[in-house]
Amino acid sequence: MPIKTGSLTLNTRGNTDIHDITGELSRLVQQSGLNDGTLTVFCASSTSGLTTVEFESGAVSDLKRMFEELVPSNREYAHNATWDDGNGHSHMRASLLGPSLTVPFIGKRLTLGTWQQVIYVDFDIRPRHRELVVQMIGE
Amino acid sequence: MPIKTGSLTLNTRGNTDIHDITGELSRLVQQSGLNDGTLTVFCASSTSGLTTVEFESGAVSDLKRMFEELVPSNREYAHNATWDDGNGHSHMRASLLGPSLTVPFIGKRLTLGTWQQVIYVDFDIRPRHRELVVQMIGE
Amino acid sequence: MPIKTGSLTLNTRGNTDIHDITGELSRLVQQSGLNDGTLTVFCASSTSGLTTVEFESGAVSDLKRMFEELVPSNREYAHNATWDDGNGHSHMRASLLGPSLTVPFIGKRLTLGTWQQVIYVDFDIRPRHRELVVQMIGE
Repeated sequence: MPIKTGSLTLNTRGNTDIHDITGELSRLVQQSGLNDGTLTVFCASSTSGLTTVEFESGAVSDLKRMFEELVPSNREYAHNATWDDGNGHSHMRASLLGPSLTVPFIGKRLTLGTWQQVIYVDFDIRPRHRELVVQMIGE
Repeated sequence: MPIKTGSLTLNTRGNTDIHDITGELSRLVQQSGLNDGTLTVFCASSTSGLTTVEFESGAVSDLKRMFEELVPSNREYAHNATWDDGNGHSHMRASLLGPSLTVPFIGKRLTLGTWQQVIYVDFDIRPRHRELVVQMIGE
Repeated sequence: MPIKTGSLTLNTRGNTDIHDITGELSRLVQQSGLNDGTLTVFCASSTSGLTTVEFESGAVSDLKRMFEELVPSNREYAHNATWDDGNGHSHMRASLLGPSLTVPFIGKRLTLGTWQQVIYVDFDIRPRHRELVVQMIGE
């Protein structure tokens, strides 16, 4: 059973910028030559994270509000006091959401629901060029 | 090293309905013929999620309260305004909790703690018939 | 493709005690003999969890505050009423954060960011001796 490693690059705007990466992940599964297995997508970053959502404008704006309410941007963070980079809330949100997501695939297709997309959420406070690691193990 | 894919079906009542699926997962590991490996359970849904908890009535009711407080049901959501389906909070809670869980197994046994059960949490607002994907990779 | 299982032990102090375990995980990858693959770390506990963060004193204290605010310790929990063990909030925080983390490795190195460390967070309210399961699948 082989392992295949790919990657995916994005340009993000920051401030809870939410990207649907389902299409790119599906393409990587197709190109892997594998039929059944497990895909892991991972962000090598401490200010962004991954999850799934129904990717439509309402839910996307609800997500932004949820993170702003759970972990507000307009307050003091010890991280900011130390490093003066102003993204303490970005670090907290990223730790809460988590940097990796695992999705099974069967018959070369990710087992996502019809109304379920994989999203990458960049909580940092400035535009970034990001590279995600995508690893598939299967047969 | 083979990969084994199974599934698990549940009838849920919605509104943060919490199911202990440890027994079913353990049975799938036993039936897989694998000794050591990694199990991934995934829900193809954007209104439910997976985690672990000590599955007793106190902790289960605390979990329901926690999600109600972190992501209240009785307020406006942009998702609801667009789609008029009233489950905006279900989507948010599901994105926060995450749709997949990975648990190692050794000697045909999941490496869970004595007081730790795998739970499936259905945040949707009506009864649903759900099918979870369970994938095991090992030897 | 082989599977390698290791473990990692820690002595924790409790009350959202946060440990950087990146070094130990990197060592287990080096010792595995594998080049490319996926590492899963799992805690067999319902009062602790795993994620990543920039491990510096500011962000670490921000994390402690975040969990105290999202899931306060100084209030009633049904779990406590039933079991009288006072760690209801520890259980809730652990379920919210999740018990497992998956990180790819390439060329014998975990694909973490420069400012990103894997942390184990013990939410329990007393010192514990903990053993984490670390499983690597690759080639």
